[in-house]
Amino acid sequence: MSLQIPQPTAVLEAAKRIAEVANHTPVHTSRTLNQQTGHKIFLKCENFQRVGAFKFRGAYNAVSQLSAAQKAAGVVTHSSGNHAQGLALAAKLLGVKATIVMPDDAPAIKKAATAGYGATIISCPAAEREAICAQQVREHGYTLIHPYDNPNIIAGAGTAALELLQEVGPLDLLFTPVGGAGLLSGTALAAAAIQPHCRVIGVEPAIANDAQQSWQRGEIVRLTAVSNTIADGLRTCFVGEHNLPILRQYVSNILTVTEEEIAATLRFLWTRLKLVVEPSAAVALVPAFMGKIDPPGQRIGIILSGGNVDVAQIAPLFED
Amino acid sequence: MSLQIPQPTAVLEAAKRIAEVANHTPVHTSRTLNQQTGHKIFLKCENFQRVGAFKFRGAYNAVSQLSAAQKAAGVVTHSSGNHAQGLALAAKLLGVKATIVMPDDAPAIKKAATAGYGATIISCPAAEREAICAQQVREHGYTLIHPYDNPNIIAGAGTAALELLQEVGPLDLLFTPVGGAGLLSGTALAAAAIQPHCRVIGVEPAIANDAQQSWQRGEIVRLTAVSNTIADGLRTCFVGEHNLPILRQYVSNILTVTEEEIAATLRFLWTRLKLVVEPSAAVALVPAFMGKIDPPGQRIGIILSGGNVDVAQIAPLFED
Repeated sequence: MSLQIPQPTAVLEAAKRIAEVANHTPVHTSRTLNQQTGHKIFLKCENFQRVGAFKFRGAYNAVSQLSAAQKAAGVVTHSSGNHAQGLALAAKLLGVKATIVMPDDAPAIKKAATAGYGATIISCPAAEREAICAQQVREHGYTLIHPYDNPNIIAGAGTAALELLQEVGPLDLLFTPVGGAGLLSGTALAAAAIQPHCRVIGVEPAIANDAQQSWQRGEIVRLTAVSNTIADGLRTCFVGEHNLPILRQYVSNILTVTEEEIAATLRFLWTRLKLVVEPSAAVALVPAFMGKIDPPGQRIGIILSGGNVDVAQIAPLFED
Repeated sequence: MSLQIPQPTAVLEAAKRIAEVANHTPVHTSRTLNQQTGHKIFLKCENFQRVGAFKFRGAYNAVSQLSAAQKAAGVVTHSSGNHAQGLALAAKLLGVKATIVMPDDAPAIKKAATAGYGATIISCPAAEREAICAQQVREHGYTLIHPYDNPNIIAGAGTAALELLQEVGPLDLLFTPVGGAGLLSGTALAAAAIQPHCRVIGVEPAIANDAQQSWQRGEIVRLTAVSNTIADGLRTCFVGEHNLPILRQYVSNILTVTEEEIAATLRFLWTRLKLVVEPSAAVALVPAFMGKIDPPGQRIGIILSGGNVDVAQIAPLFED
């Protein structure tokens, strides 16, 4: 099978397509964070993106690129998270029917939010999600929009980093969280396109380090069980076939972090920086926040990937 | 006693003094909020201000205006909230010794934050706060920086609204929460200075409606017991002598809201807009969010006053 791997310029094209519909999210800085780390840190706040996460960027880019016939038929995906909402909204804005296959045990609030954008929800046992998705494609001619293993999803995801690099100027380092690696591979393409000297680094939970292993070995390593990391957006068990070649070519490193480090960084982002971010977003800030980036004095970008989180559920992390 | 009531131009002067040290906080907007309310709403995010609240603005303006002798002697105040931290940081930046009288039962986290800015903390029973503060003034020659009943505090607080009005252009309405009315009176001066046609409205918890009564009667009405509103920054029992004349001259209305309305608005700000704000800040958005502002189509500014809140403590508001 010959894969169509997106080039760095694909991010520039995606940026034009989404310019009128996506939020140009703000970049936050913090005196406290800079003093504490010795770096100059720029936080790209995708928690303020539409649907509360960067996922809308790739979804809109992907749906907008479909042929007229594909648009008329509709799109389908399987996701219980931010991609579901991103695709539902993108499809709605483009007048395309969306069907989202969600596991039976997905939170009611996420099902309701996705349905609220006009998508049709199909509930099924988690293990049957891919099969049911494939069945929908066969029976209805829907186009599958994969959450991360898709060139247009990757290019769209990279537009967050593109905006950041264009706004703040030269960066030494750029960190993103890694789940399926859609965001990381898109970010790497963005840097390659306009700041090739900026090193792009992925960060993932140590208990879900499939991307690190895949990047090191040069082949897709699959976790045999779903991790229970608090960074629920990063529980993906393997990176995509379109993603790995980009990681190997453009990504400088993939680091891992502990659950305690994620929690401490999340607390800082909420209580000091007043940002509602989800644990997956906090992951990208961990290495810098924990003082692991030497030498000091670097200009560092962080993609805070999203802010969709149940406050009541996360509150125990804030107890003494 | 002849009071020195600040003029609208005092806000313009304060803005120059704080320009280099205060954060020029961002203005957030939301498609969802605008669609839901039928208005165009601009949220001035003072939760992103230094110390996490607008209070830093007035504190810095006030301390910077002291004479050399006053600065050499030091400042004192009584506060268990945001003014304590605002004054502590302002004094530190200006090389002035600060003493903060806090009630014994103030949260340890707030005492630690205030001490972290280099202030001396004096703990005492809540009922003795004012007496101990006065004693410190007598014994050490400190200058009392009152949390709201002070012309320079008022003018400094108004700079948040000034920035908002300068950034977004003409507004029809501008809402702030009301505790002691430092923010409301400063905001009213800011509008009078540069947009006199913009109507300024205060919002306070119905169970702590002393400002509404005072504004209506034209005399300071004192609550006989401290309210237990969840908007803990608005539990002040009476507005200041400097504040009331400004409210009477420049404020169009003072509205009250219920505890349930505050909680619902807070949940929206956290879960949809991804902003960590304290309940007191949510208060200002309640009338617009609850659909009580007619006719539709107005341009409305909201001062989100701060974001200092204990996540674990507030979490029950987010439970189903």
